[in-house]
Amino acid sequence: VEVRSFDELRALGDRAKGKIVFFNRPMDPTLLNTFEAYGGAVDQRGSGAVEAAKAGAVAALVRSVTLARDNVPHTGAMHYDAAVPKAPAAAVGTLDANLISALLRKGENVVIRLRLSCETLPDAPSGNVLGQITGWEKPDEVIVVGGHLDSWDKGTGAHDDGSGCMQAIEVLNLFKKLNMRPRRTIRAVMFMNEENGNRGGKAYPKAPGRAHERQIAAIESDAGGFAPRGLSVEADSLVFERVLRWRPLFASLNAGDIVRGGSGVDIDPLVKGGTAGIGVIVENHRYFDYHHSANDTIDKVNPRELEMGAIVQALLCYLISEEGLAVEPASGR
Amino acid sequence: VEVRSFDELRALGDRAKGKIVFFNRPMDPTLLNTFEAYGGAVDQRGSGAVEAAKAGAVAALVRSVTLARDNVPHTGAMHYDAAVPKAPAAAVGTLDANLISALLRKGENVVIRLRLSCETLPDAPSGNVLGQITGWEKPDEVIVVGGHLDSWDKGTGAHDDGSGCMQAIEVLNLFKKLNMRPRRTIRAVMFMNEENGNRGGKAYPKAPGRAHERQIAAIESDAGGFAPRGLSVEADSLVFERVLRWRPLFASLNAGDIVRGGSGVDIDPLVKGGTAGIGVIVENHRYFDYHHSANDTIDKVNPRELEMGAIVQALLCYLISEEGLAVEPASGR
Repeated sequence: VEVRSFDELRALGDRAKGKIVFFNRPMDPTLLNTFEAYGGAVDQRGSGAVEAAKAGAVAALVRSVTLARDNVPHTGAMHYDAAVPKAPAAAVGTLDANLISALLRKGENVVIRLRLSCETLPDAPSGNVLGQITGWEKPDEVIVVGGHLDSWDKGTGAHDDGSGCMQAIEVLNLFKKLNMRPRRTIRAVMFMNEENGNRGGKAYPKAPGRAHERQIAAIESDAGGFAPRGLSVEADSLVFERVLRWRPLFASLNAGDIVRGGSGVDIDPLVKGGTAGIGVIVENHRYFDYHHSANDTIDKVNPRELEMGAIVQALLCYLISEEGLAVEPASGR
Repeated sequence: VEVRSFDELRALGDRAKGKIVFFNRPMDPTLLNTFEAYGGAVDQRGSGAVEAAKAGAVAALVRSVTLARDNVPHTGAMHYDAAVPKAPAAAVGTLDANLISALLRKGENVVIRLRLSCETLPDAPSGNVLGQITGWEKPDEVIVVGGHLDSWDKGTGAHDDGSGCMQAIEVLNLFKKLNMRPRRTIRAVMFMNEENGNRGGKAYPKAPGRAHERQIAAIESDAGGFAPRGLSVEADSLVFERVLRWRPLFASLNAGDIVRGGSGVDIDPLVKGGTAGIGVIVENHRYFDYHHSANDTIDKVNPRELEMGAIVQALLCYLISEEGLAVEPASGR
């Protein structure tokens, strides 16, 4: 049975029993921000298995959460609920989704056989990977610049988030090439396990050695290695004003959109602990074309656009390392 | 003999005689604006044959004017000089250019055989293609929105300039879909012969029927069907100020960079005649990867980015059709 929402599924009552529920609500192509469109469709992948099981269905088949017209499944995180049976769930490419939908609308008896070989293995040890240039003046004030090392295994995770990792390394490389030693420590962090619980992001602030440090800023690029357009600042208003004063410098790199907003999943635990979070905003029309699919490979990354993102982050690291982000709010005492 | 500039070729004296001159100066990758980098290298393609002949060489081989690391030749306009013999000229992919250069530097005796089948045929009649929605209030005030129909025959000209043509058609389509009739006439013009003399652009203002019209604005997208970033206005300062007042509307489409600058080759004859010219600025890192080569095909055009360009131009046409561009400069009398 084809549905476009959980409400629609519930309204079916018993009619989903013993069937495969086919969640086929597309991402809304009329939204300018593709991340917003993604947010409006991803519930089907995240909770489709649980909702299908609640309706008595045998499985969930989910239209890939992408704007691309392609025929590769786009995978991603999903969850089960201990209170309901575990229904198997699979993603299907948008062209096949359109075909299945057309057949169902014609009243055809559509039979789909799912053969899934995936399984959840026990946890195994892994780790974040760190490299840094230690600040000459304030070595204990740390600017984190990072991405995440893990990716979905359909492609190689070139955009999500190989790009962010390589840019973080390139930030350090640019400082070395320019023979510049920053005042504060700049640390490239390749976080582990963003896609499946963010345990690398959560572990970083608790790691031994953090106790005597101040993590003053955390920068993340996790929206693909596309042309940078600006910065999204998740911090106190006065910190934002400080970043905003640097706007002309970023505008000279065509990345002058300095806005308040979210920063990044990996650095979220740092931000929650008081670190200023800054996400790189990129041209995002194409991100979900590749996202979590076999198409997320290095040939989809333009070398100039990737490098521009590294340059923007290097500039930001330089400014923060030289000037800091400390602000003195007016006192009422 | 390999050279990187005409000065270097002239300094060779007799040593280029009877040889193939290999022009191998790359586009400067450090320039943010790829059009500027293109402008700094394209003399080798445009005038290489003439300069090679002046040096007594038998032919010119030109490194493709692209930032891509690929192995397809990128072609384009070149010229001869009646005062010097016509030397054959050919473009070579950048990977082959690097190989040839490496072999020459190793002191190898490099022999290249050119077999060119191209020829210049006599002129044949062709024409611009026009379609319009006639303004209900001021039908004789015309807003031209256009691109050019012709392209280099290695690819299909999807970015250069199929995108501009399709966007111009889509502008009219959007008005029809929204059931909106503009106050002034909006005319989609697919210009002919931009690449080889701009005769379509030159013919348009002189065509019968233009005499009783006022061409108040001409809009062109000829930098590829990439994500739009803003508008480049080639007009009087007060006209520019008028467009600048609309900036928040374009910023809401992520295309808020409103600057003064060139507009487009096809509409240049109109602009020279007093029409306000407006070019669409797009994200340009990838344009020259595809430009004038076998890689300029429809699979390189992202449907969302193409559509966003059409939306930006439709908004601009709407604003000009409703409000006009007339300005009243302060009078000193």
